[in-house]
Amino acid sequence: MIKIGIVGVGTVGQSVANILEKNKKLISARAGKEITVVKGVVSDLSKKRDVNIPLFDDPNEILDDDSIDIVVELMGGTEKPFEIIKKALYKKKAVVTANKALLAYHRFDLQKIAGDIPIGYEASVAGGIPIINALKVGLSANEIMAIKGILNGTCNYMLTKMIEEGVNYDEVLKEAQELGYAEADPTFDVGGFDAAHKLLILSSIAYGIDAKPEDILIEGIEEIKKDDIEFAKEFGYSIKLLAIAKKNNGKIELRVHPALVNKDKMIAKIDGVMNGISVIGDCVGETLYYGPGAGGDATASAVISDIVEIVRAGQSSPMLGFKKPFLSENLTLVQKVDIHSEYYLRMFVNDEPGVLASIAEILGKNAISIETFLQRPSDNNKKATLLCATHECRERDILNAINDIESLPFVSAKVVMIRIDK
Amino acid sequence: MIKIGIVGVGTVGQSVANILEKNKKLISARAGKEITVVKGVVSDLSKKRDVNIPLFDDPNEILDDDSIDIVVELMGGTEKPFEIIKKALYKKKAVVTANKALLAYHRFDLQKIAGDIPIGYEASVAGGIPIINALKVGLSANEIMAIKGILNGTCNYMLTKMIEEGVNYDEVLKEAQELGYAEADPTFDVGGFDAAHKLLILSSIAYGIDAKPEDILIEGIEEIKKDDIEFAKEFGYSIKLLAIAKKNNGKIELRVHPALVNKDKMIAKIDGVMNGISVIGDCVGETLYYGPGAGGDATASAVISDIVEIVRAGQSSPMLGFKKPFLSENLTLVQKVDIHSEYYLRMFVNDEPGVLASIAEILGKNAISIETFLQRPSDNNKKATLLCATHECRERDILNAINDIESLPFVSAKVVMIRIDK
Repeated sequence: MIKIGIVGVGTVGQSVANILEKNKKLISARAGKEITVVKGVVSDLSKKRDVNIPLFDDPNEILDDDSIDIVVELMGGTEKPFEIIKKALYKKKAVVTANKALLAYHRFDLQKIAGDIPIGYEASVAGGIPIINALKVGLSANEIMAIKGILNGTCNYMLTKMIEEGVNYDEVLKEAQELGYAEADPTFDVGGFDAAHKLLILSSIAYGIDAKPEDILIEGIEEIKKDDIEFAKEFGYSIKLLAIAKKNNGKIELRVHPALVNKDKMIAKIDGVMNGISVIGDCVGETLYYGPGAGGDATASAVISDIVEIVRAGQSSPMLGFKKPFLSENLTLVQKVDIHSEYYLRMFVNDEPGVLASIAEILGKNAISIETFLQRPSDNNKKATLLCATHECRERDILNAINDIESLPFVSAKVVMIRIDK
Repeated sequence: MIKIGIVGVGTVGQSVANILEKNKKLISARAGKEITVVKGVVSDLSKKRDVNIPLFDDPNEILDDDSIDIVVELMGGTEKPFEIIKKALYKKKAVVTANKALLAYHRFDLQKIAGDIPIGYEASVAGGIPIINALKVGLSANEIMAIKGILNGTCNYMLTKMIEEGVNYDEVLKEAQELGYAEADPTFDVGGFDAAHKLLILSSIAYGIDAKPEDILIEGIEEIKKDDIEFAKEFGYSIKLLAIAKKNNGKIELRVHPALVNKDKMIAKIDGVMNGISVIGDCVGETLYYGPGAGGDATASAVISDIVEIVRAGQSSPMLGFKKPFLSENLTLVQKVDIHSEYYLRMFVNDEPGVLASIAEILGKNAISIETFLQRPSDNNKKATLLCATHECRERDILNAINDIESLPFVSAKVVMIRIDK
């Protein structure tokens, strides 16, 4: 029998304990051994939990129990769980964690400390979708050309509502909060940080690259307005918060930002709170993985898959899926300003002669050529909104152009820029 | 160093050898050891192959070579590869195969013979999509409620063309043949047999059930006509050849047939030659896997993922993903006539009084209630086509009703029935 201790018995922890009980026969047949949760640790023992296991408030109750084989860490935070996992590894216990923030900062430390002791983290990215396993095992023959993920259900829910129902940002945020899809302080989700943590984990498996959140471009969805949605619809795009890792001339681009995506692409068809990841491999081409990115039972499904795999195989491969020499030999991050993309710009200007000419001149001077331009009659006949899409250019050039445009006397607001991912 | 021998160096075999060479550094870093293809076996040595390995025409050249660790079987057929794989296992060599026909008949024999020797078969279902691994590992916490797969690219290409461009069956078949998507004798694909082989493999992992092709309902796409396509479009459906495994009152339904699928479902959005599999688990809900179901490099991607996994872990779990007691304890197949579904019927009748009343009476008598009915004015004013969709009923009842309808004097052709998968 394999004994499990769960540190952090919240929504996911309760699901893990309850599913391991409910599907015990099935899971044992698959794992080849009986798996039993013997202890849970919580910070506040007075709070009621819907589980059938003894609860304690000291992690050492699990860490110092030599009969426990696998420690499941579901407590959240970064430094405290890092200490707990380190102690578990030191005690030669296998570890399963769903903690993306911890991994965003400490995944390489953990791989090093763990050595041959298994660490599973399937639940840390895209909830119930087995994307870690797909990257580590299913796509192991491939040089990964690109990963494009919808990794935050809150943002995807909000953007889907805005596009399908024309609801504006503030309204849909309020609705998402009422439904429990968004936190009271939604910054971590809508600002792109949650998706960035997950992207960093995926990119380490794909490229072996050790980047931290502060190293990469992260933009949220807060600036997206009805005008942008209408432009997207008119020109056949959807708007998604994309987490992108891709190879670009032997370097790696890592970025999280809203993007206009051609609506015929599979990734554009992932709507509502669902997550999806498109992976382009040099042999296989595109494969895509779709499913629930959050929720107690869905996340528990991923946690338990790690447990089953550890029971079956022990450590079948190093935590991040590769051994030395590191995949990342010679791979460096592309500087934020050296990204290449197509861009969409929204400009709010005084409606007067010469405006368009001045803007067009700035774009031309910065080596940016226009693909689509749209100006609609405005309600306010002294102001106009100009919308334009560019051909591919350098991020540095578009930022310079935006800077120049914003300093024009007749431009009366911040220029909004959204990258286009064709 | 791990040495590989490939039996059958056709399109996929050449891709396997060439990708293992091209991505050698990457794949070695992931597997933890260098992997080298040392020999290939072909039936006709005079045919030129684009590979850098010595070729032989006798499988024993590989089977009797004690330095070879893994035998990759890519020859096609059933009995001959079965003998070769048995000999490889007897010689304690790990095996990787892409042979779905072999597995459709002999997967349980192979699991028994293999014991602890690894057998990989990721490439046997849905080409480059790592669906075997998702079911064996990623979803191992779940009781699988249903699998719905688009597992045959030829059929999906043809149906997509018929729907998007209104091309008729014969025309699109010819086009698919010219593009190399369909064989000169297309029966194996368009008749649903290829999809059925793959479904049987998936259903064994999900349910541990040992069925053969002849045990299950298999219908192809040959009877689908423009009228059906138009009905589908009018009522918000797509038409897909679905391979379905699902639990139904403690029994298992296995069936392959064309189905009208609500066009808003993710599985309905998988178009062209691509494959996709929707899996419903009791904890995770729906996850979906999308990608290329065929092609040399895509299939080789799956073959190599098995090789890497074998090199990393050896046998991490039994071939079909479970140990005794078998999952299939107490699980039996639902009889074909006991399936429950909604149905669409197309009837070609004389346009005369009383026709509709007689048909409606037959449906009512068989406990079938109508959900949608459509009769359009006909070019031929003596004949009419009636299209109808039913509420859920038993297959037995709909078959009886069709039998009765076909015996009516004014019904002048076979009634066409397509199941509806809402």
